Amino acid sequence: MKVTIIGLGLIGGSIAIDLRKKGIATSLAGIDANGTHASTALKFGLVDSLEESTESVKEADLVIMAVPVHALAKILPHVLDAIGDKTIVLDAGSTKSAICKAVVNHPKRKQFVAAHPIAGTENSGPEAAFSGLFKGKTTIICEKQKSSVSALETASLVFEALEMNVIYMEPEEHDKHVAYVSHLSHVTSFLLGQTVLDIEKDEKNIAMLAGSGFASTVRLAKSSPDMWAPIFEQNMEYLSQALQEYIIHLQRFQYHLMKRDTQELHRTMTEANQIRRILNGIEVKNNVVSQAENKSKVELAN
Amino acid sequence: MKVTIIGLGLIGGSIAIDLRKKGIATSLAGIDANGTHASTALKFGLVDSLEESTESVKEADLVIMAVPVHALAKILPHVLDAIGDKTIVLDAGSTKSAICKAVVNHPKRKQFVAAHPIAGTENSGPEAAFSGLFKGKTTIICEKQKSSVSALETASLVFEALEMNVIYMEPEEHDKHVAYVSHLSHVTSFLLGQTVLDIEKDEKNIAMLAGSGFASTVRLAKSSPDMWAPIFEQNMEYLSQALQEYIIHLQRFQYHLMKRDTQELHRTMTEANQIRRILNGIEVKNNVVSQAENKSKVELAN
Repeated sequence: MKVTIIGLGLIGGSIAIDLRKKGIATSLAGIDANGTHASTALKFGLVDSLEESTESVKEADLVIMAVPVHALAKILPHVLDAIGDKTIVLDAGSTKSAICKAVVNHPKRKQFVAAHPIAGTENSGPEAAFSGLFKGKTTIICEKQKSSVSALETASLVFEALEMNVIYMEPEEHDKHVAYVSHLSHVTSFLLGQTVLDIEKDEKNIAMLAGSGFASTVRLAKSSPDMWAPIFEQNMEYLSQALQEYIIHLQRFQYHLMKRDTQELHRTMTEANQIRRILNGIEVKNNVVSQAENKSKVELAN
Repeated sequence: MKVTIIGLGLIGGSIAIDLRKKGIATSLAGIDANGTHASTALKFGLVDSLEESTESVKEADLVIMAVPVHALAKILPHVLDAIGDKTIVLDAGSTKSAICKAVVNHPKRKQFVAAHPIAGTENSGPEAAFSGLFKGKTTIICEKQKSSVSALETASLVFEALEMNVIYMEPEEHDKHVAYVSHLSHVTSFLLGQTVLDIEKDEKNIAMLAGSGFASTVRLAKSSPDMWAPIFEQNMEYLSQALQEYIIHLQRFQYHLMKRDTQELHRTMTEANQIRRILNGIEVKNNVVSQAENKSKVELAN
């Protein structure tokens, strides 16, 4: 399959590596507006060739778009304009409503699959790409009914090669859920980082006291602002709602703290301990549950 | 050296393992109010024998107290009452002001070293104890001037055996700093956990979308409420200040989010990215910097 990847960062680069490894991609062309990223991706062998414009996608069997979501919503209609009759386009954006809206009336909408493979690290760029990033994780496909059967078959091939479980949702449902389990935790990390950096200006040496617990909690604060600012903007409403709920929880905690109501603090933490159930689920999902089992679970639950 | 450990959880248990391994402890007695913890610690060989009351500490060369901080402040004076003339007492509490105040006028204050070895995991109890928990990490000793030379020498032996760097601070300074780099990140994790659990009640399947980023950010929400509620209570003022600053940062972020001021969101995240510097410091501290180098750094900085 002739594959073109638009956006050669952590996500695009890691997809390229595994599509080649599994024999899905027989040739890989790359496009990236950032010249350094493009040449690094070529140098590392993530792609075989670089292209300058999206006009060349006419000949591709599959185009994968892994650019920041504001660029995605803007470029996607032009990419659909340019593709051939048999080309399938797949995106990897972390928001889905704005992206689906951008092509809702496009005559080639059927050739597009709106997807969000939920995976990543706090690192970015082609040098951060690696094989296995997606293994055992979940992809959400939105507006399944608007994609053709052959487009969905191609998407299945890709996500099987990446060893991902696939589930289906509508864009609004997707955006709401990821606001809580992904976007919110990025915001909490970024601002924990900023709070500690702020106090550090006045209090020397505070950094050297930070341990592994702090490191874990603040890890996502290293994430790329270029990638996350547009995600937050596109998912403003749901993220804002999640953030508001988080702030209310914090304020309630602080109220009990200041009243020295240790019993109530204890009760809150005991409740929060139940997150073990979800975290164990993440481990199970990443290690044990097969694609088939996971599919049937979702079907039962829906 | 005859060692008695009061509190046989993650911290007390891990200290026991390494003091025996390094030949510091020739005999290890244990005391724990929780009968299950006590018998597990004996079964796992963390200690050689169990004792019922603190009266038996008279014969010990060294007593290490690793109980929750409210119990610590309460029991410590009685332990000092009971010890022999040559017994040294060391604590491992995560707060220092309340603990130092509890014994400020005790006639045996000189035999006590107020210490906080900064290490831990989200797990608790004797089954969570392991060798190497403290390796490469930092211990803060407070009110050094109130401990005798021989007490400080014994403390040095212990922290060398645990392969820790030792720095010195006054209790208030300690409590302020750990409020930001340790206690705050526990609060942010607990309440992120609670927020997601809350929304999960209405939105089925949200848990299965959580990825490794969420898992990292929320990891500390698994921590023990029995241990953390008293820490938060004792460090109420500084933690409340840190929490207030965090909430203000979150509210400011939300304001820019709702105004769709993506440029300002980008600026905030770029600032937060500087946390890499602190996180790299944690890695360096845990892997490379020798005790001697670290000591001289602190001396230069003070």
